[in-house]
Amino acid sequence: MSFRATPALALNQRLIGLPGGRASLATPALVVELDALKRNIAAMALLCAEAGIALRPHAKTHKCATLAKLQIAAGAVGVCCAKLGEAEALAEAGIGEILITAPVVAPQALARLAALNAAIGGLMVVVDNPALVARLSEAARASGRPLKVLVDLDPGLHRTGIRPGEDAYALAARVAADPHLAFEGVQSYAGQIMHIGDAAERAAKAEAVTRLVAGARDELTRRNLPPRIVTGGGTGTVAIDPGGGVFTELQAGSYVFMDREYNEVWEKGGERAPFETSLFVQTTVISAALPQLATTDAGLKSFACDAGPPRLARGAGPSASYFFFGDEQGGVLCEKPEDRPQVGDVLSCVVPHCDPTVNLYDALHVVEGDTLVAIWPIEARGRGF
Amino acid sequence: MSFRATPALALNQRLIGLPGGRASLATPALVVELDALKRNIAAMALLCAEAGIALRPHAKTHKCATLAKLQIAAGAVGVCCAKLGEAEALAEAGIGEILITAPVVAPQALARLAALNAAIGGLMVVVDNPALVARLSEAARASGRPLKVLVDLDPGLHRTGIRPGEDAYALAARVAADPHLAFEGVQSYAGQIMHIGDAAERAAKAEAVTRLVAGARDELTRRNLPPRIVTGGGTGTVAIDPGGGVFTELQAGSYVFMDREYNEVWEKGGERAPFETSLFVQTTVISAALPQLATTDAGLKSFACDAGPPRLARGAGPSASYFFFGDEQGGVLCEKPEDRPQVGDVLSCVVPHCDPTVNLYDALHVVEGDTLVAIWPIEARGRGF
Repeated sequence: MSFRATPALALNQRLIGLPGGRASLATPALVVELDALKRNIAAMALLCAEAGIALRPHAKTHKCATLAKLQIAAGAVGVCCAKLGEAEALAEAGIGEILITAPVVAPQALARLAALNAAIGGLMVVVDNPALVARLSEAARASGRPLKVLVDLDPGLHRTGIRPGEDAYALAARVAADPHLAFEGVQSYAGQIMHIGDAAERAAKAEAVTRLVAGARDELTRRNLPPRIVTGGGTGTVAIDPGGGVFTELQAGSYVFMDREYNEVWEKGGERAPFETSLFVQTTVISAALPQLATTDAGLKSFACDAGPPRLARGAGPSASYFFFGDEQGGVLCEKPEDRPQVGDVLSCVVPHCDPTVNLYDALHVVEGDTLVAIWPIEARGRGF
Repeated sequence: MSFRATPALALNQRLIGLPGGRASLATPALVVELDALKRNIAAMALLCAEAGIALRPHAKTHKCATLAKLQIAAGAVGVCCAKLGEAEALAEAGIGEILITAPVVAPQALARLAALNAAIGGLMVVVDNPALVARLSEAARASGRPLKVLVDLDPGLHRTGIRPGEDAYALAARVAADPHLAFEGVQSYAGQIMHIGDAAERAAKAEAVTRLVAGARDELTRRNLPPRIVTGGGTGTVAIDPGGGVFTELQAGSYVFMDREYNEVWEKGGERAPFETSLFVQTTVISAALPQLATTDAGLKSFACDAGPPRLARGAGPSASYFFFGDEQGGVLCEKPEDRPQVGDVLSCVVPHCDPTVNLYDALHVVEGDTLVAIWPIEARGRGF
């Protein structure tokens, strides 16, 4: 027996360029609409350029080197990564400017960090704990070149970061004084405010973060440690951060795809989102036991469910809604039987939360209209380590 | 620049056999305790052998050919797969007896099904819809050998399956009459009752399913279509199904790992579970901003969250509990500050729901005590298509 399973990345290769190939994808498939994606990339690049700040999009959203290169070609100064393993995968695929936005602490990770810093000149890390400075310094020494370091400032989320204040300034001074480290500035990411539906409340909280970070910046400058980089901000606070006068770099990620959750942030505020939904999961109806119920091939293994169910975008009537029908299947419940799709029908769903959903797939299927135009590997999929 | 990222599967290779290597794994890491795993495999094999029925464990739980081979070596007749792509990956790794437990309907999938049936003699599929018989027949004809088919009976979940009754018997007759298909029997999986905490209620509902399926079996037999195979059952109904007198094969899966959710099924009933927790996610503390709070490197990308948060098993004091702190991180909140782990500490977590959590990882790290003894690839990870 010598059966060879077609790799996920090659499964739909023969459909590239075929008219109507999108409808024939092996499902569940992660699909990105190229025109909307490009408009999102351009819109954010313009927004940052007009504000006079840099854009370093967060690659934890897409984990895809091809997409990162499109962002860089449109003006981004590099990317952010959430994890070292993600940075390694994107560096292998040719991305040379990477900020890792969470502390790297474990001995095996610091050894890998040294190897990565030796390989790419544009690596930057964060630190929030004075006990880690010596370890980063040793990794930098081993790598043979200085390691760029930002001090991670906690904006009140208490996830990572050190509170602005004496301890934080002392940490910055310690980094700056280290012979193997280069103090580049500060990071502050306020994840807790990104999804606040009330636009005024979201703006007020983002402005409070801005003031906090500006205070730290001013104090560091007074102490002769002026931050060259002040990085933070996300898709949810894009109306505030670029023009807020403190961030020199924006690290938004989700704007490229716009999931259901981020669409709802603007919908709740009664506003039009500045970005478009470009990401979908395509799924096939495999059974339809009852007049108002259909079962699809995409369940909890095909969508992250922390933000609830996906939203049906194409393939079912207006009274249809999606629910998780276990690990392997989705359910489509229709108030009106005539809205129920048939066995074999193909549906498109807006994903509830893009980042952890993308992390389930090996490939992005890139479409223009109904044509599959490319398949991009998601190189950093699963690289949370 | 020629940086090469270490593949996930090779990342911890150098730790195999080293004393204490478990504590040095790159994290987040999926860890399986081999002794407990082997006891679970043996316990279920014995349980089925004593009941005189076959065991065909569901591989959707582990997606791992090495683990499937251990189950088969212990007496299992083969495995179940939830999806064609999963079956392809396990067939490539040498598993020759596979039942795909959900309908295969799309044209591209039927072509792949034909190739798989040509390659392995032990393939079996389900059908719940007369419109699909001709498509399966064509795939079987193209494959050059008969395709084994079970009629999927809906036990009231309405996810897949046809209700027992005239339509179901006609479907069986149609399969049996087809020159390219072999009617092998019936499947009925009652996913809706697996996690009922009240043992008496769970037993009563499982017995109702047993009666329903037994009625269909008897009617098919009366019509000269005796089912050679009656497959179904899960970990939650293991006290009822093997001795219920209707199933000839058990398709339980989660018993190999025993996640938090299945442990709670027995805990709620005040009973001791017949299987042990063998699966853990190992994670490292990367930050600790407050006296009662620590942040780990495992968040929503490292655990499926449909069944709530993981349970801390090792590495933190008794007042500590885990919460999801976003996509990339976990939070450990401690009522008592002395229970809080320190930056760099390694924690072990019982996963909330094993199947979709395993699907996030490329490798199972197999440990005996504190020694890493093997790294098993999860060949069918991500193969939901």
